[in-house]
Amino acid sequence: MVWFRSFIHVSSSIGSSSIKHRYLNKSPPNYFLSISLSQHFSTESTFHKTPSPDDNPYSGLCRATKPSEKPRMVVLGSGWAGCRIMKDIDTTIYDVVCVSPRNHMVFTPLLASTCVGTLEFRSIAEPVASIQPAISREPGSFFLPAHCKVLDTDNHQVHCETVTDDEKTLKPWNFTISYDKLVIAAGAEASTFGIHGVTEHAIFLREVHHAQAIRRKLLLNLMLSDVPGLSEEEKRRLLHCVVVGGGPTGVEFSGELSDFILKDVHLRYAHVKDYIHVTLIEANEILSSFDDRLRHYATKQLTKSGVRLVRGVVKDVQLQKIILNDGTEVPYGLLVWSTGVGPSALTRSLQFPKSPGGRIGVDEWLRIPSVQDVFAIGDCCGFLESTGKPVLPALAQVAERQGKYLGNLLNKIGKGGGGHANRAREMELGPPFVYTHLGSMATVGSFKALVDLRQSKEAKGLSLTGFVSWFIWRSAYLTRPYLKQNLRIVGSFLRMVGMS
Amino acid sequence: MVWFRSFIHVSSSIGSSSIKHRYLNKSPPNYFLSISLSQHFSTESTFHKTPSPDDNPYSGLCRATKPSEKPRMVVLGSGWAGCRIMKDIDTTIYDVVCVSPRNHMVFTPLLASTCVGTLEFRSIAEPVASIQPAISREPGSFFLPAHCKVLDTDNHQVHCETVTDDEKTLKPWNFTISYDKLVIAAGAEASTFGIHGVTEHAIFLREVHHAQAIRRKLLLNLMLSDVPGLSEEEKRRLLHCVVVGGGPTGVEFSGELSDFILKDVHLRYAHVKDYIHVTLIEANEILSSFDDRLRHYATKQLTKSGVRLVRGVVKDVQLQKIILNDGTEVPYGLLVWSTGVGPSALTRSLQFPKSPGGRIGVDEWLRIPSVQDVFAIGDCCGFLESTGKPVLPALAQVAERQGKYLGNLLNKIGKGGGGHANRAREMELGPPFVYTHLGSMATVGSFKALVDLRQSKEAKGLSLTGFVSWFIWRSAYLTRPYLKQNLRIVGSFLRMVGMS
Repeated sequence: MVWFRSFIHVSSSIGSSSIKHRYLNKSPPNYFLSISLSQHFSTESTFHKTPSPDDNPYSGLCRATKPSEKPRMVVLGSGWAGCRIMKDIDTTIYDVVCVSPRNHMVFTPLLASTCVGTLEFRSIAEPVASIQPAISREPGSFFLPAHCKVLDTDNHQVHCETVTDDEKTLKPWNFTISYDKLVIAAGAEASTFGIHGVTEHAIFLREVHHAQAIRRKLLLNLMLSDVPGLSEEEKRRLLHCVVVGGGPTGVEFSGELSDFILKDVHLRYAHVKDYIHVTLIEANEILSSFDDRLRHYATKQLTKSGVRLVRGVVKDVQLQKIILNDGTEVPYGLLVWSTGVGPSALTRSLQFPKSPGGRIGVDEWLRIPSVQDVFAIGDCCGFLESTGKPVLPALAQVAERQGKYLGNLLNKIGKGGGGHANRAREMELGPPFVYTHLGSMATVGSFKALVDLRQSKEAKGLSLTGFVSWFIWRSAYLTRPYLKQNLRIVGSFLRMVGMS
Repeated sequence: MVWFRSFIHVSSSIGSSSIKHRYLNKSPPNYFLSISLSQHFSTESTFHKTPSPDDNPYSGLCRATKPSEKPRMVVLGSGWAGCRIMKDIDTTIYDVVCVSPRNHMVFTPLLASTCVGTLEFRSIAEPVASIQPAISREPGSFFLPAHCKVLDTDNHQVHCETVTDDEKTLKPWNFTISYDKLVIAAGAEASTFGIHGVTEHAIFLREVHHAQAIRRKLLLNLMLSDVPGLSEEEKRRLLHCVVVGGGPTGVEFSGELSDFILKDVHLRYAHVKDYIHVTLIEANEILSSFDDRLRHYATKQLTKSGVRLVRGVVKDVQLQKIILNDGTEVPYGLLVWSTGVGPSALTRSLQFPKSPGGRIGVDEWLRIPSVQDVFAIGDCCGFLESTGKPVLPALAQVAERQGKYLGNLLNKIGKGGGGHANRAREMELGPPFVYTHLGSMATVGSFKALVDLRQSKEAKGLSLTGFVSWFIWRSAYLTRPYLKQNLRIVGSFLRMVGMS
């Protein structure tokens, strides 16, 4: 109770306005900070105590590092690219600050499997702090749950806004970080092609919370379809799962879904097993990046397991139905949207020269040429036309390879004494980033997958189907270096194969 | 594509209005149903097909069972009481229909452990359909995700409204079920004592989604407290976890929380370990139902592990602070409210004679005496004063014992041919329900718990503390008959004891 009395005792000392005043005086001239503070302290901040002399909220991340200190690498994002560079970066050279709305990396290729419970959500998410332990250990390394709002490359600063996790009681709060090296790995966002109603009514499949929403909605619809008084039509609508987009994600999700229906639904929801259907809508060929033979195999397997493949272009998405270009109405109970990705709001807002497709333009060393110490990797970047190189596909494979390359490059720069801001101008960077496509993989349900090992779409090369390729597909992920949850996955894997 | 063309083909046949019309004509005169349908079909229902002759939405659950059919037992709720009776009921005698907003039973005594990741959410939730498999197997047995709104005991019917899982795209929908036997096991709701702001700002600890919200908020606050520019005061506020209510739940949660701080926070959030604190606020003694010695032991253990025990009465709850009766302000980042339970909205709405405390009044056989074929068990019921028996405490132990008793009673009635509505008037029911208190248990952190084996508060009897009692505490749950997830729990258990 001593502690309690003491903090009650001081609760009469200083009012929040005076605190705000004090901090504003101390703060560097920065419109962003003043906004943030006024906004911040306007919420009832009531935990008052006499401020200690060292109580200076603007020490640390907001000011540039001294030559005597470790240079600070700021990473925007925690996807494949961002997590790979954080894993590889030498934390004896750099302090690492990760700014991302998500404190974990999502193991996207396995996301579809979590929607129907084949894998558990925990199994495919890895905390940033365990990918790079320095983040919770080193005094100068942090993870900050925030979005980057404004880049100030002249002053080597990023202005960020905290996430609120949809908490009504929490106001977002802006803050600033100075960087020596900035790595933009903020990814892309699901593209809706400006089709009306997609964001309101469809669920994407890019984050764990998407998979959770899909699972919740699927189960709720299954339960609701038992409710007495429900018409046949309504029952069929509720249990009609529509997937738009025939890329790997859409195909894999359709496969998982039809497996789920054939196994679990027939077992646990016997009442409605004849009402539930899966439809996959694609404007062109499904899996267009794959070899013809594989495409036909996938088509055969999906159709065999009850997935309806529909060639069509979505014109409008409404509350309970999709309208196709030819006017056809497709009623749905669950709508999953996976038609690829496009530039995110941050990418669009940046004033740097862009690559074809509107991504952040980078040179062969993944630098943004027009500014110092800023790099971009993963889905958010693309080679500038001046490099004469094609924009790479938005694949985990590409993102991770870029993260690995840039990690080594920055380690080399750091060792060479170029870690601090503007210290790497004259440095020799060595070989540029070169991407070799190792092939594509996709699963079309348990024990069935496609492995396309051709180096490019035109080139000849090995392509596998069936159990072997499915095994390769799973193995490729079970052997990830930093997927701590492997055991859990192996567990689910064995359960799936019926070995446990 | 054949299927697709066919359902497109018919999509021009019947308009939803005419469907509505058709069904309304078929429906029995019931304001509830008409409301439900108009409400329901007013949403764009577009999956049209020529109705098959047997397409009658009001066959089945809405009409009373024929003497040739199995009698229908409707259970409202899926907690300890409801799940126990569903497990024990003889499904060769009865069809079982469970109406509950929750399709799983929550293993409440272990809920506190899931907030900090000691146990996983899945480990403490068991689907109703696996507790009573007939629900997914038998043609006449169902689980329906809904709330009971109105009881019509004259016609042996319940009027229900479906849950929408907060889906904006889903409108709740009303329907009716006829019952032969009705078991009200709808539980109680967290009591706020009418204190302003509790429901807006505090989190209860009664459902899995509560535990998820607590975990999410705790982690978010931990991450946010690293954000640069945050004042010392604000940091302390964000990381101040306040628990109101010193009953077993409040005490167990405080214990888990302090363990989490001592272990995980010191390891993973080293930056803020000195800022995070737990305060437990209770108006009287903590664990008042326990033996003095146990209470003192709990107090000592909690204080030792850093929990601040505060004697106080909450007057008002605001966005970021609590006001106590004596005017003291307690700022908080996380507020958990566990001050016991009171009658739910449904219980309050029912016009039956109530027991002291406003619960549904039952006789010694757990019947509602004023009506036929309606029973109440668990936290929602209490003995009528006329029985001369005291109202039993709202404990899992009581609820489960009542479920077991009533299960046997209804099986006996069913075997005796009294299963259908109004057929058990003259039957001999045998011995009434008698409750013997087997003792109370609570944990105060890893390896520390209290076991109070006295038969009543006054009586002498065995009382244990420390590891042994903690082991008993865990074992009591690890050996649950129908907790399929035991393996997972044992896993977590072994991890906790450091044996795996």
